[in-house]
Amino acid sequence: MHYPEPISKLIDSFMKLPGIGPKTASRLAFFVLTMQEDTVLNFAKALVDAKRNLSYCSVCGNITDVDPCHICQDVQRDRSTICVVQDPKDVIAMEKMKDYHGLYHVLHGAISPMDGIGPEDINVPSLLKRLQSEEVEELILATNPTIEGEATAMYISRLIKPSGIRTTRIAHGLPVGGDLEYADEVTLSKALEGRREL
Amino acid sequence: MHYPEPISKLIDSFMKLPGIGPKTASRLAFFVLTMQEDTVLNFAKALVDAKRNLSYCSVCGNITDVDPCHICQDVQRDRSTICVVQDPKDVIAMEKMKDYHGLYHVLHGAISPMDGIGPEDINVPSLLKRLQSEEVEELILATNPTIEGEATAMYISRLIKPSGIRTTRIAHGLPVGGDLEYADEVTLSKALEGRREL
Repeated sequence: MHYPEPISKLIDSFMKLPGIGPKTASRLAFFVLTMQEDTVLNFAKALVDAKRNLSYCSVCGNITDVDPCHICQDVQRDRSTICVVQDPKDVIAMEKMKDYHGLYHVLHGAISPMDGIGPEDINVPSLLKRLQSEEVEELILATNPTIEGEATAMYISRLIKPSGIRTTRIAHGLPVGGDLEYADEVTLSKALEGRREL
Repeated sequence: MHYPEPISKLIDSFMKLPGIGPKTASRLAFFVLTMQEDTVLNFAKALVDAKRNLSYCSVCGNITDVDPCHICQDVQRDRSTICVVQDPKDVIAMEKMKDYHGLYHVLHGAISPMDGIGPEDINVPSLLKRLQSEEVEELILATNPTIEGEATAMYISRLIKPSGIRTTRIAHGLPVGGDLEYADEVTLSKALEGRREL
């Protein structure tokens, strides 16, 4: 025997998280033992609540606890602009910037023929449907500045062009190969400001 | 709004853990959303179980789910030797080695006058009580090779000496697989001092 069972189970659970190996998991598990019982109970509750009470918005695909999400419901927002992002975390990065007041569409991925991910596997069909029913004037393609993100932006832009909706791509103020999620607000703001017609 | 409430609560919980900042916490929280519901429920349960079902062994002070702990209960172990360590994690390190078959005593800290921690604040009194009632022949002082650990070992050794129980200190020297070139002066000095006839 090495660890008592409750702690080895907790270590196993921590090890399922990304970037946490056996040593960190053991450190975290032993730290939990020193925490207040209330704090631990809240942690456990937060885990279950996050998993159970969050779902994807039926309109934009963003992570939300109400459907449609707060952004889609917000009458103050500019409904003529939709910003297309790959990930719910990208919406949060955009919202932190506070310079964008339109709506979003979350693709949950990018087209990647190498991994067998086509337009049908990400939220592209729902975007097309949305463009038919809503009065959209501009589609801002804010997928990541990676090969897959660029390809996705290009694909959507070509698909939308005939409909007359303006499609723009955020500027390459973002470092190529980086991740939208980790971009600082100023860089992101510059990228938005420098968007160009495709 | 930045995050929906359930996820921001989960991020806050992750941030209470050591070495986890806002970005890692957010990455972990979003990862939890992609996990199987069962796995998340088990994680939550493991947290609560570890906090509720684990306590300290009334004999040796080690973390355990039964009292006395498995090691104290084990009749196969050599009851004439007690290894004194600072932390329950040190017991696990010793057990992994599989070369030690005696009992343990966990101090839960070390004497540190700078932080106002005296012998009464760690598990020294219970050790003395134990030495009176149990038939102990050797006390191995395996506190950490730090100033506090050394001071604690020295203190306990002086306290026990009159009783005639043999007190030993684990050896200081170069770690196996280490490099003489990179060893610090104190370690090297200790290694030289502790040299043995081959």
